[in-house]
Parts: sequence; structure tokens; C-alpha cells
Amino acid sequence: MAKKTKWVYFFGANKTEGDGSQKQLLGGKGAGLAEMTRIGLPVPAGYTITTEACAEFTKRGNRWPVGLEQQVKDNLRKLERACKKKLGDKKNPLLVSVRSGAAASMPGMMETILNLGLNDESVEGLAKASSNRRFALDAYRRFIMMFGSTAKGINREIFDEAFDGVKDNQTRRRIGKPDHDLVLDTEMNESELEKVIAEFKTIYKNAAGESFPQNPFEQLKGAINAVFDSWMAEKAIKYRSVERITGLKGTAVNICQMVFGNMGDDCGTGVCFTRDPSTGENTFYGDLLINAQGEDVVAGVRTPVRLSELRNVMPESYEQLEAVRVMLELHYKEMQDIEFTIERNKLYMLQCRTGKRSPGAAFRIAVEQATKPTLDRRDVNRLVRKKYLSKRYAKLAAKPVITKDEAIARITDADIERLFYPVIDPDISSAELTANEMGTGINAVPGAACGRICFTAAEAEEYAAGGSKVILVRKETSPEDVGGMHASQGILTATGGKTSHAAVVARGWGKCCIVGCDKLQIDYAAKKMSMNGTTLSAGDFITLDGSTGTIYRDQFKLVPPSAPKEYDELMKWCDQRRTLGVRTNADTPEDSHKAISLGAEGIGLCRTEHMFFETEERRLAIQEMIVADDEESRRTALDKLLPFQRGDFEGIFKEMNGLPVTIRLVDPPLHEFLPSTEADIDKLASHTGVSKDFIEKRTEQLHESNPMLGHRGCRLAITYPEILEMQVRAIIEAAINCKRRGIKVFPEIMIPLTIDPVELRILTDRTKATADAILAAEGVSLNYLVGTMVETPRAALLADRIAEVADFISFGTNDLTQTTMGLSRDDAGRFLPDYIDVEKTGIFKDDPFQSLDQDGVGMLVKWGIEKGRSTKPKLKIGICGEHGGDPESVYFCHRAGMDYVSCSPYRVPVARLAAAQVVIEEESAGKKPRKKAAAKTTKASSKKKTKKAATKKKAAKKKVAKKKATKKKAAKKKSPKKSPKKKAAKRKKAKRR
Amino acid sequence: MAKKTKWVYFFGANKTEGDGSQKQLLGGKGAGLAEMTRIGLPVPAGYTITTEACAEFTKRGNRWPVGLEQQVKDNLRKLERACKKKLGDKKNPLLVSVRSGAAASMPGMMETILNLGLNDESVEGLAKASSNRRFALDAYRRFIMMFGSTAKGINREIFDEAFDGVKDNQTRRRIGKPDHDLVLDTEMNESELEKVIAEFKTIYKNAAGESFPQNPFEQLKGAINAVFDSWMAEKAIKYRSVERITGLKGTAVNICQMVFGNMGDDCGTGVCFTRDPSTGENTFYGDLLINAQGEDVVAGVRTPVRLSELRNVMPESYEQLEAVRVMLELHYKEMQDIEFTIERNKLYMLQCRTGKRSPGAAFRIAVEQATKPTLDRRDVNRLVRKKYLSKRYAKLAAKPVITKDEAIARITDADIERLFYPVIDPDISSAELTANEMGTGINAVPGAACGRICFTAAEAEEYAAGGSKVILVRKETSPEDVGGMHASQGILTATGGKTSHAAVVARGWGKCCIVGCDKLQIDYAAKKMSMNGTTLSAGDFITLDGSTGTIYRDQFKLVPPSAPKEYDELMKWCDQRRTLGVRTNADTPEDSHKAISLGAEGIGLCRTEHMFFETEERRLAIQEMIVADDEESRRTALDKLLPFQRGDFEGIFKEMNGLPVTIRLVDPPLHEFLPSTEADIDKLASHTGVSKDFIEKRTEQLHESNPMLGHRGCRLAITYPEILEMQVRAIIEAAINCKRRGIKVFPEIMIPLTIDPVELRILTDRTKATADAILAAEGVSLNYLVGTMVETPRAALLADRIAEVADFISFGTNDLTQTTMGLSRDDAGRFLPDYIDVEKTGIFKDDPFQSLDQDGVGMLVKWGIEKGRSTKPKLKIGICGEHGGDPESVYFCHRAGMDYVSCSPYRVPVARLAAAQVVIEEESAGKKPRKKAAAKTTKASSKKKTKKAATKKKAAKKKVAKKKATKKKAAKKKSPKKSPKKKAAKRKKAKRR
Repeated sequence: MAKKTKWVYFFGANKTEGDGSQKQLLGGKGAGLAEMTRIGLPVPAGYTITTEACAEFTKRGNRWPVGLEQQVKDNLRKLERACKKKLGDKKNPLLVSVRSGAAASMPGMMETILNLGLNDESVEGLAKASSNRRFALDAYRRFIMMFGSTAKGINREIFDEAFDGVKDNQTRRRIGKPDHDLVLDTEMNESELEKVIAEFKTIYKNAAGESFPQNPFEQLKGAINAVFDSWMAEKAIKYRSVERITGLKGTAVNICQMVFGNMGDDCGTGVCFTRDPSTGENTFYGDLLINAQGEDVVAGVRTPVRLSELRNVMPESYEQLEAVRVMLELHYKEMQDIEFTIERNKLYMLQCRTGKRSPGAAFRIAVEQATKPTLDRRDVNRLVRKKYLSKRYAKLAAKPVITKDEAIARITDADIERLFYPVIDPDISSAELTANEMGTGINAVPGAACGRICFTAAEAEEYAAGGSKVILVRKETSPEDVGGMHASQGILTATGGKTSHAAVVARGWGKCCIVGCDKLQIDYAAKKMSMNGTTLSAGDFITLDGSTGTIYRDQFKLVPPSAPKEYDELMKWCDQRRTLGVRTNADTPEDSHKAISLGAEGIGLCRTEHMFFETEERRLAIQEMIVADDEESRRTALDKLLPFQRGDFEGIFKEMNGLPVTIRLVDPPLHEFLPSTEADIDKLASHTGVSKDFIEKRTEQLHESNPMLGHRGCRLAITYPEILEMQVRAIIEAAINCKRRGIKVFPEIMIPLTIDPVELRILTDRTKATADAILAAEGVSLNYLVGTMVETPRAALLADRIAEVADFISFGTNDLTQTTMGLSRDDAGRFLPDYIDVEKTGIFKDDPFQSLDQDGVGMLVKWGIEKGRSTKPKLKIGICGEHGGDPESVYFCHRAGMDYVSCSPYRVPVARLAAAQVVIEEESAGKKPRKKAAAKTTKASSKKKTKKAATKKKAAKKKVAKKKATKKKAAKKKSPKKSPKKKAAKRKKAKRR
Repeated sequence: MAKKTKWVYFFGANKTEGDGSQKQLLGGKGAGLAEMTRIGLPVPAGYTITTEACAEFTKRGNRWPVGLEQQVKDNLRKLERACKKKLGDKKNPLLVSVRSGAAASMPGMMETILNLGLNDESVEGLAKASSNRRFALDAYRRFIMMFGSTAKGINREIFDEAFDGVKDNQTRRRIGKPDHDLVLDTEMNESELEKVIAEFKTIYKNAAGESFPQNPFEQLKGAINAVFDSWMAEKAIKYRSVERITGLKGTAVNICQMVFGNMGDDCGTGVCFTRDPSTGENTFYGDLLINAQGEDVVAGVRTPVRLSELRNVMPESYEQLEAVRVMLELHYKEMQDIEFTIERNKLYMLQCRTGKRSPGAAFRIAVEQATKPTLDRRDVNRLVRKKYLSKRYAKLAAKPVITKDEAIARITDADIERLFYPVIDPDISSAELTANEMGTGINAVPGAACGRICFTAAEAEEYAAGGSKVILVRKETSPEDVGGMHASQGILTATGGKTSHAAVVARGWGKCCIVGCDKLQIDYAAKKMSMNGTTLSAGDFITLDGSTGTIYRDQFKLVPPSAPKEYDELMKWCDQRRTLGVRTNADTPEDSHKAISLGAEGIGLCRTEHMFFETEERRLAIQEMIVADDEESRRTALDKLLPFQRGDFEGIFKEMNGLPVTIRLVDPPLHEFLPSTEADIDKLASHTGVSKDFIEKRTEQLHESNPMLGHRGCRLAITYPEILEMQVRAIIEAAINCKRRGIKVFPEIMIPLTIDPVELRILTDRTKATADAILAAEGVSLNYLVGTMVETPRAALLADRIAEVADFISFGTNDLTQTTMGLSRDDAGRFLPDYIDVEKTGIFKDDPFQSLDQDGVGMLVKWGIEKGRSTKPKLKIGICGEHGGDPESVYFCHRAGMDYVSCSPYRVPVARLAAAQVVIEEESAGKKPRKKAAAKTTKASSKKKTKKAATKKKAAKKKVAKKKATKKKAAKKKSPKKSPKKKAAKRKKAKRR
């Protein structure tokens, strides 16, 4: 760095060198202090050493960059002038605090030193100036300990021991308190504090090998170094790694004039929020301690009173604070978390930052800020009258401070997600929870769950059927366990990551799930699990917190989720803004129902294989099909499955009335359906009359080295066309049945794992031949589409030729990620963390199974879209991997030009939000808005097709239309021209009422 | 098709409507007949119905296309005029043959009908005209049978029974032959033949439900229909599917005047080759039967005499045939396979086509045709003198008929492949072989092998060590079996395809291997195998023919391969022509040695993991490393492996003196190295002191769902940097040791399975840091490169950023194919055949693991090359998958602009050939020749680097140079400026001498 680099930014006396926009350079705290100063709020003077100085310090092997010392000195002098006090002064010394503050919040990770500037002489100066020698001595002993432990790394406990020694021996004796009563710090007198100070200095000298520095500038340098060092401390590095905080230069150092809230009853300190952070209510909310320092509030030493109390004891300070609240909210246009101190009736703002809030509050605040004034007119007038508030702010306060777009932009996916999952009752003390904590795993699906432990899916189903709430605990889950998983309140597995089978299935249901709990050991035979020394048996209670990944023994009360009315309002705004369609991945009528209530506009992925596991009858039929020796026996077994599938599809079509339903033909390799337990093999043997030996042989024969790349997807349909034919028959017959009952059906048949246009042509032809034959026989016309999933690089690369055959394509980005990166979702848990660990390698910003790898996989997706549309400009394109519910990925899908995303029901609102946010972002970047494609496409194409069909069967058509019209009138009494989307929205609303 | 379509092409009387170029339209036979007619050779007149007519016939549901009947009639009249005979004539009838003939040879698959035109009247005409009524009757009975069986599908055996009945009852009685002596057909008299004819007509009537047609045109139509039908007969469809014959329209039908070689001793028939097909010697070679029909030669009824006999019995015909031989060779520029008939001293050419030949002959013929005259001057002069040969042909015959380029273009990879593998002694009768045939599998690696059955790798090693030749028979093989595989003569597995572990490893060694033998059942416990009813035990002899995939019980004599001198000559020409470098995949000094003898110019892939299995000591060390609990224990175990790896690398560097060696760091997932048998687990437990339980747990822990996409490749180096460090140390120390002994070393360290530039940067930095530290410590300068394998789509997509880091990239197209297509090489055997089966789906032309998928994978390869060179224009690029030895893939690699291909040693000559062929093809298409890149790049870059290093250590450099120079002089006494390539060539030659 050049000599002239500006390392230090001053703030004070309403003038600042920095401002709120310089968070990267000055850290969050430094930028906040500068900004508050800049807008005229009462802030103690001080200066901030930049994060760049910290970076340079680390780079130079823990030496200060050239010029820093001079600038620190110059600014110190400036600070002394502003405060009209001098550091180390014998009469009225200036004291400063030295605090760290990076651009991202790292609570508890870095150092703070208060009361700096005290030494053997200035402590007496402070005593005089405050007229309180005890206060000054107490400040001095605190400073020595803080400086010793942070700047010199002396074990804090040694100081504590010495302090307790004096307190317990001398003070207790002096005041004559019995042994079983606690002696309070405040009961120590000056001479005892002097003794403590003397002992602290000895401890310091012994440990540091030098005397406690009396030179205040030496103290300052030591404190600054301590803050710099804390940036690269192991715990801070670990924290950044865990929290995925990257791209920061270092921490800033804030040197600030000390103000004291503990100088008497005209002093106080507080922490408050500009609105209620748990409800979002527009009220001034906070805690206050009279005659106390800020640390005391945080440490919980004394119980604070409600902020409104301030109005009674210091009415002027309260009104001033009220004005500050309004000014900060209007300035930042956001709910603020504020720290303040009142020193002898003078208010000082120590910190302000955007406040954390409950998910419900997030919506209420956003919606109210966008629709209502910040403060009611009466209060505004009062504050203006008293000159606490300027006319300018008064005017701003009278109307909404943000736009609806800004409200949308502010909400995060986490806000939505947390809105829908039950949580452990917040009234339960953290001590009680901690006492029952068994360990943690990966928090795959949030929310809490509580129930009796079951180790097998069968048991789980059995107990649940008997009315018990159960938690399924498995090493890992497989498709065979789906029944038991569904019956459980939550799922816990020892292996797997966020996209393992357990996680994906559970997420689909919004069911609490913790996976990859590597300390979990299960003894299936003994029906016992143990973790970090605790052993539980089947039937014991266990509670999972899927939001944190923590596992507790015993049962805890759970609190159900509830969404505020502002949620509905904001989501409505989102739907008005977005152009991307949002569908859901749903396999059952129940899922479909749920998804519609969450705003889904159709099904983007209905997996047909889960249906095979639902009952034993179905399981046996699919197994019979697999062990069959020839096509005829296979067809016999398939005939048994047909009515089940048809029934399932009818249920789904009914739920999705008027909305498109994309049904994927069977995808997993057949061996996944075969029985694995002795008992199940016996059952299948007796059911089919085939020998156990043969079943085992067939299972072995079907075993695959890499099932993910094996005989699955449409490869099954190539080998066994009869499976495809059965499924298509089930879909089309279900559609016919529904249509005859007046339900509007838009089936989209999706062929999985295509790798070649010829392959797809063969299967598409077969699908259409089967479907058209049924339709012709039944004399029904139906608009159905046949498309494919693009989930291999080859399919994406050849999308132009694929599009010649497909009516639509849907990117299956789960598998596309696996193949593009050569990365098994089930196995990556062992090494992918190393790839994401910022400090270890930082190769990937995110887990590519969570958030789409835009560099690699994204390139293929964009290529696929471009090539696909080069052949078929109106090709309908969607995504149906897990990524459809990840905001960054949704942004990407919008920008890439997709028509819709599809995600699990509980991610639908997240996708709706993200789809709106990206539009807002694009518009603010000056991009022309895109037309709303998804819903229109569906409607337009179906209309067109209907017209075509009409020319063929005019008479039939007329009859149907008549019937439809009648039904519509009877049922809805509304405009018959409603789009599917509007209808869905209506249905959703109805449900919520 | 329009009315005016020309369905029929006439030939005769030196005039033709078609010619030799119209193989697709006229079929091979039709085009040959037209062409021979066109160049003035004596061919019976006739006409050809096109393959398009056949296609139209099939399309129209077995009805003749419009216009065909008229054209057949018209051309028949034309034929009658040309022959001056009429079909069905009572005095001197025209007889015709009706033969099928597609563009590709399908021997035995389709129909032929001779003597058509005979009926109850014309048979007497023929009797008169031939003055041989017995001959005429014999021809008639043959015709009825042929027509009945082919056109009407009457079982031939019924005819044969009737025939034998007359022969055995009437003839035997008449001539008084005893029961045990065979009665010859020729011993039947006219009345007996008349009876046969009568019985045949009855059989015909009974079976066909109508009388045998007396109308010759009706006969002709029936025969044409029979030929058309035969195209879609099941056996023909199957044949085309198996032989991968695609793109044909149908079969042509050739209607040709009959000529007879069986009218007396001035008649005869023969089959001959213009050169000796087994040795390639330039001599007229063939078989002859006097007074016989062509079928008799093929059927082997009588033993033919050598062609030279013709010179004695019909000298004029012989000389005329000699001239025909020369004309055909000069015309087609290829060795021809000829059929002829002499009818009453008049020579007729019935067929000519390019002759099949032994691999040795292929080289000799190609080289001699490109370097020597076709016929020596004396013989030319003789034939010219006798007017059999024109001056023009005489002139052509005196000089080479093809160019060297044409010689190169003509050789196929199969020619080369078959040259190097031992075969079962051709003297063993096929009857004997058939009697011992047990079944067939997939012919993974050609050549034959014979030995005693072993069912475990350990046993194989043990028996082989004791001097026995063994065949390893396994359900499948794994890396643990490599020792036993290497010790075996050949490998037989029940599962897997051509790219299964067994096949890939065996191919690397050129070791006979049959895989995917699904009828093979192994009982490891009982040490028995059985196949199609035959059961053998361990220790029994078995013989494998890897070229056909056939398995025989018992042992058979094998004949070693030998390459003719013309092979060396032609490969030299290839090396002069090609611009693409050819390296080898070799893991041991022995492989390297072999590869150099086959012309490899370096190693493109040295897999380091096979080295870990070579001895128990190594196996235990790597296993110890894997079960180690912390980095330190891992390093201890790695230290034990270091000297082994270093020693291996030294051996390889020594063999490859002066040539680049690409070493890939360890690639497979660690669980592949762990012991699987109880005994091995015990051994490891006692070796490491770790409990068996722990080892089993660790093994389970390391188990992966999809190991192909798991914790392998450079992911291991990310997790365990110490493995990379050990391997780099071994490479660099080996290089230093070799360099000090005067060996020229060019190590290229290759990082496998990269998916990201940051990942590669981390590992490259680590590699260079390790290497440079060792070099600095040893005071040695060394030119080494660090590059990566591109084997995931993501790596190819991001090649521009990968190239910023890599010195070179090598496409690992095995894994790139697996990931791009989402296709497991180990599992695809179950469904990939359906994808390649032309009649079933025909989705892929070839197995994408055999021949690079140019559409999909190729797109990524081309993208990778383009992007890679966009960042680093001189980026060295190669391929090291199995595709490097596949001609089509080599063509692709050349066109895509790669620097080299790398393949298993035995495929090196194939790659050299293909690399030359593609240059020739490009030049003939008018493309400018590319500069020879590979060898030069290596040289240039190493020179450049040396120069750079020199500026640093001039003194040291001079010393080394001096030492080198001295060595060179002593050892070679040749120009010191030889390129590595020339040296390799020289070494290769020396070895062969």
C-alpha cells in the first residue's frame, strides 16, 4: 500500500469522514456510528481504523501498515479536542472504548476493551471528575482485566479468582455476611478495590513478563493489536467458515469516547428496537437499566425494566430517543436495533443496526412500512413541537417509507421457511434444553418434531397407526421406507447430506429431518441407539429440532406455526410482480392440496414410483413384475398396478383441477423395489410362487455398481415397453374419468433420463400411440403433452434435437448436477464439506445440490434452453430439481428464460418470492420486463389444441361445453374466463380462511 | 415412387446400364457384374432389379412397385435377344439364375434359384440343345426343389427324402450296389430322375396347394418374390443386427443367363484369388473342378484340384483367365475373389469382389501393390502377344498400381489387431473344435489362450509361479485380482462388457479375455464351473478364443503371431504421414517396453494405483494408510509406499528414456484397496494391530452408493494432501535418480477428475511446492509439467479457466462418457445392447465406450479444446481413454486438434495407422496439412524450459551436458540431434531384428 493510504476515519461533532455506505471499509459498527453522526444524532466522538489496515496487518506478519501509527495519533489528538479531554489526564481524563467490527456480524467472536486510558494517575482524575472514586477504581480494575486477557491473553479466571478472594475474605468479613449468602460486587469498598487493582497488576506482570502499561498510547496500541489479532483467531476463522462468511478484508477497530450510564440515577443504558421484533407491531420496544453500563444489559446481571419506564424517570431523554427512533427508521427504511447510554441526562447513541426479527414480524414490518406511516400524526406533531424532530422527517414519517417492491426485496427465504415449521416452545428454558441435548446432525428440513423412537419403517407405520407419534431413526433410508417415513413426525439418519434420500423425501412433505448425524450409532438387533454417551431404546421419546439439527432426549412441547395476514398480502404482491411460473413437486393428492394452498400453479414433477410403495398389495405387484421371467408375466403384474396408479392420478387431477400436471414415468432402477428383508422375500415368494432362491438371484442380478448411472429412467421403458404402456394408460384413463366428471385436466407426460433424440422419439411415439388408442376407443379428446427431463449433460448438449421431439423439457438439476460434476449426491457428504469450507479450500460457494452450480451446470442449462428454443421457439421449459426452491437458483432460472420452476410444496412461497425479487432487481437495473409466460403458455396451447380437436368432433365438443358451462355456473358464479392461476389463488385463500 | 422410376438395369454384350460404383443400388454382385461387363470381360448377360425395388416391395406390404413387372418383362426380352434363346423354349431354351445381392455381403442369408425356365417342355429342349437328356433332367429336378423350398417355403428335407428314396430303392437295386456303399447321384439314370421329378411335383402340389408352375414368367416372378422376401426373413434381420449392417435399402435381384460347367470335360468351374489370400504372395491362387457346377465347389462335394491344373487341360481358357486376373486387379486396384465357369471351352465370369485375406497378407498385398508391378514383364508380354491383354493394361501392369497413401488407407484396425494375437492352430479341424465348444461370451480382447482353470487370483498366481499356464475364471474381476489376472494366460468372466474391469485391464496387456459369458455359472465353494451342461473343475484345461468369444473345454495348440516385414514398412509410411502423436497407457516398465516396441512416443497415462497391488507388502501398506486414524499414521504408512513407487517410476523412466511420461495421481476410491476376504482382513489386522472389527467398520464407512461419482480422483488429494505429496515425491525423486544416471526424463504429473479451476489450482500449487522443494534440496533442475485429466463435463465446460492453471489437459473419455451420458460402464451391459441393436432401437451406432460418442461427448471435447486454447493457445492436449485406440475416435481427435492420443500398447499401431489415414483423407478432401505437433511441442517446451533453467544454473548445466554428450557418443555413434520420436522408431526396429 502506498504511504498516503487513509487508514483512519474520524467521526464526531456532527462531522464525519466516512458514512453508512462504507460497511466493507469501516465495518458495520464503524459505518453505523459514522452514519448516525452524519445525520445529526448524538454519538460519542471517535474514529475507525479500516478493515484494510487489518488486512495489511495480517499480510505484513502482524505489523502495522506504514502510516497507521501517525494517523492513530493524529486522530487521537482530534478526538481529545472534540471531547475537550485528554487521554491519561490527571484531572478529567478522556477514556475510550476499543471495539472490533467487521462488515458482517460475528457476535462474541472478537474483542472489546473498555475504559482505556486509565492508569494509576488518571484513575484519580476520573474519581474527581465523576465525584465517585469507587466508580473510578471499579472501572480501572475492569480495564486491567480486560486488557490483560485480550491484549496479553492472560487467563481471565486468574483475575476472577483474585477478585473473588478479596471479595470473599475481606468484604465478607467486613460486612459480616454469612458464608451461604452471596457477596455482591457493589458491596466492595474503595480500599478493597485498591487491593484488587494491586493484585491484578501483579497477575499481569507475572503473566505478561512486564508491568501493566501506564502509558495510555501504549495501552491503545495494545488494544488495537488485540482487535487485529482476534480476526485471525481460530474461533473467528471457524465461525466465518461455519457461517460461510467470505470476501471480508478484516475487522475495523472503533476507538470511541467512553460515556457512562452508571454515574448515578440520571444515567442509564438500554437496548431497543424501533418495532416489536417478535410481532412486528409498530411500537417502541426495548429494555432499560437505570444507573448501569451497557455490558450489564447484555450480561443479564440485573433485570432490566421496560423502555417505557424511561418516559417516567427521564421524560426528555425519552422523547429525544423517540425522535431518534423515527429518524433512524426513516433514514434506514428498516427496523433498527439500537444501543444507547444516558450520561447525566445526556443521550448518546452507541450503535444502530438492522434488527433481527421473527418471521411473522418480518412480514408485518415490511407490509406496514410499505402501506402505513411510520408514526401517527399526533406523535409526530408532539416531537416536532418539542424540536426533537425536523419538518423534513415529520413529512417522511407521515407516509409509507418503502415501496411494495422494497418490501418484497427485503423478505428472505428463511423468513418464509421459518414461518411454516413448528418450533420447540420458546418458553422452555435453554438450560433445560441443553441438559437434554444428545448431539447434532445436519439440519436437512427445519421445524421441530417429537415422538417415540422407531428403528424400522414397518414399526413406525404400526405405531403411528395405533395413534402414537413416532420418529423414524435409521442409518439411512431407502424408497422402501417411504411408508414409515410418512407415518413419522420426523426422521433422523446417521448418514447422508441435505440431499440424501431421507432429506429429499422429508423436504417434499415439509417434515422435520436431521441427517448425517455421524455420532449416531444404531443397533437394529438390540433396538437401541446411542449418541455421545446417551443410549435410548425403541419406544423412548426423542425430540428433533430440524432448524438447528439438534437432537434432544425426552419430549418437548412444540408450538405450531402461524402466518400473519401480512404474509398473504406480500405474497400477493409477489404474484403480481413475477413472470416466472411456480409449480410444485407432488406425488399425492395430499401434497397437491398442500401445494395449492401454498400458491402452486401446477405440478412440475409428479414422481410415480413412490405410489408403488404405498401398500403391501402395490409393493407385491411391482415386485412380481420385476421377478417375472417374460413379457406376458410382466404385463399380468402390471395389470394389477394399473387401477392403483389410475386412482392416484385421478386424485391428483382432481386436486389440480384446471392446472397442468407433469407426470414423470417410473425412474429408479428396478432393484430399488425388491424386498431386502428375509420376511419380505418370503412374502414375495409365497405371493408369486417363485422360489426364494430365484428372488435372491434376481436381486443379485439386478445389483448395480453405480445405480445412479444404471438401468433406470427411460432406459427401463426401452427394455420393458410394457411398463411405459401401463403408466400412460393409467394417466390417460384417469384423465378421461376426471374429464367426464367435469374436472379440467392438463396432463404432461414426462420421460426421464433421456440421453438421445432417437431414444426420445421412440418413447414419445410409443406414448402417443398408447394414449391416442385409448382416447380413440373412448371417443374422448384430450390435450396432453409429451416431454422429457433434461438431466444428463448429453441431453442438454443435444437440446436442439431433443426439442424436435419434446413438447416441453424440464431440467432435472439434481441428476444434472451429479453427472456434470461427477458427484454422487449420496456419497458427497464425505468430501463436499472440504470443498465448501472457506478456510480449507473454498472451492464452492455453496453446496451445488442446494444452490445451482451456475458456472458449470448453469452453462449446460443455458445452452439447453438456447438450443431447445432454436428448434422450437415456444418450447415450454422448467426445472424440477431441488434447486427450484432455492432463491439464487430461481433468480438464475428466471434470467435463463425458463417458463417455470417446480419445487416441493413448502418451497413454493420461497420460489414465488424469489421470482418476484429477480424481476424487481432486473427492473431496477434497467432491464425491460419479461412477459408472464408460464400460465399463458399452458392456456394458449391448450386453447389451440382444443380448437383443432373441435373441427374433428364438433358435436361431442358442444355437448361437453354445455355440460361444463352448467357446472361452472353452479359451482362458482364468477367470470368463466378466469385463468388457472387466478383460480388457484382463490382456492388458496378459501383454504386459509 | 413415380411411374418412371428405373427399377431394372441391364448388362450384356459389352454394354451395361449400371456400373461398379452403384453398389448401393445394384448390390455388390450386380455392380460387379455390370462393371466386369463394362470393362469387356466375358460375363453372361442379365439384368439387376434394384435394392430400391426391394425397399418399395417391403413398404407396399409385399407388392411389386408400379412399373416393375413391365420392366422385368422388357429386360427379359432384351436378355433373350442377347442370348438368342427364349425362356421356356422347346428347342433351345434360355435358363436363368435368380440371385440376391445386397450392398453388404450377407453370406448364406439370402436366396438363390438356378435353372429357372425349365418346365416339362423346355427340359426336353435343353436335353436336345445339350445333347444330354440326363443333364437336363437333373437340372429340372434341382430347379423344382430350389423353387419349391425358397419360393414356397417347402421343407427341403421332404424333397431330399423322396430323392433318396428313389436312389436307394430303384438305383441301388438297378446297379446292384450293396447296402453299406453309398449310391452317387450321378449313378441315377434318366428314368429314375423322371420319377424323382414326378414325385417332386407331387410334393410341390401337396405343400403349395397348386401345381408346379409351368409358365416361366410365373416362375420368374415367384423367384423374384422369394429374393425380396428373404431380405426381411428373421435370420437376415438378425444377421444385420449382429453384424451392425445399417443403412441398406434392401437386396437387389440378379437375373442372369445360366451357363454350365457340367456339360462335359470341356467345361469346368472355379473360385480363385488374384493373390494368395493367406500369405499375400503375388501368385494366381484357386480351386478348380472340371465338369462341375459352381455349387459343387462351394458345397465341397468333390475335392477340387489346384487352379494351375487348368493350364494343362484347357490352356487357352487358363491364359484368358490369367489376363482376366490381371485386368481385374488393375481395374479394382485390389486383390479379387473371382468365380468363373467354363462352358464348352468358353470362359464366363460369374462374380468378382474384393477378396478376404489373412492379416499378414493384407500388409504384403498393400505394400507390394504400392511398390511393385502387378505382373512380371515376361508374363505381360506373353498375354499381350496372345491378345488376351490390351496394351493399356500391359502398361499399367508394369508399375505399382496404388500409391503408398492408398496402401495405408486400405489397412484396417482389425488387420493390425489380428496380427498380434496368438490363434488356435488353423490345422485343427472345425469338427474337433465344435465337439469341444462349451459356449460363447463377449470377445473382449482377441487372441487365443489355453490353460488350467483357476477360480481365484491367489490360486492363479500360485499355479503360475509353479510353472502352470492358467486361465482365471471369475464372476467378475476387481483391482484386487490384478496380480492373478497378470499371471494368467487369459481371463473369462460371467459378467461385464467390453469395458468392464477385466476387459480394460486385459486389453492393456493384450491378454485374451472373454467377458459377459452369461451362461457361465461358478460355484466358488465347490471349485466348479458349468456352462450349457458341461461342468469343469479347477485344474481342468480350457481354451479361450478371444477373437470370437468362444470357450472350448480341453487344450488346443496355439500358433504364435508373427508380423511380416511389410507391416514394418507400412507403419513407417504411417509415421511419415501422421501429425497426431501416439502415446501409450502403461503402468509398468514391461508395458512401457512393449509399447515402445509397438511405436509409442511416450506415455499418456500411467496409472499409479495398480502399483499398490503388486505385492502383499504394498497392499498392506496402502491398506494401513486407509485404516489409519490420523494424518500422522497415514504419513507413516505412505512412507512405506514411497520407495516402491519411486522404484516403479525409475523403471518406467528408464524404459521411456527421452520420451514424456504422464503420471496420473491415484484415482480410485480408497475402499477399492481394502481387503474383502476374511483371510486378508486378518492379515491386515495383525499387520496394523487394528481390530478386525474396526477394519470392517472402516470398510463399511467407506462404502459408496455410486463409487464412480464418489470420493476418488483429486478429491482424495483434497481430503488427504499427504497422499499427493508422497506420490509427487516418488515421481520427482525417481526423476532425479534417473537424471543422475543420464536418463532423459520428462515427467508430466496429471491430476485426475478435476471439476473446478480453484480445486486444480490448490492441487497444482501443492504439487509444485512439493516438487520444487525436493529439487531445490537436491540441487537438480528438472522440466516437469503439471496438468489434469478432463473427465467430467464440468471440467470440459470450464476448460478456459482450467487452462489458466494446467500445463496440459488429457481427456479421460471413459469417465467423460459415463458422466456425459449418465451411463455406468459397469452396469450398461444390461441395457446398452438394446440401444445399439439396429432392429430394436438403433439409438447408437456404436458402443460409446468403444468408439467416442462424437455427437455428445465429442461436443464437450471440442468445446474443451477450443476454450482451453482460448486461454493458452499452446495448451498440450491429449486423450487417454479407451477411445485412443479406436480408429474413428482417432480420426475425431485429429480433426478436433489434439496433440496426441494415448492407448493401450497393443492399440498403438492401430492409432498410428488411423492418425495417418485421417491425414490422407483430409488431404484428398483438399484440406491443408497440419503441422506435426505432439513431438515438437514436447521438444520445444522442454528446450525452452531448459534454457530458462540454464540461466539460473549455468555451471551445473554445462557439466550435465558434457556428461550426456559423452554417453551419447559411446552408446549410439549417431547424430546427437535425433528427436525422441526417431529414437523410439530406431529402438523399435532394433527390437524386431
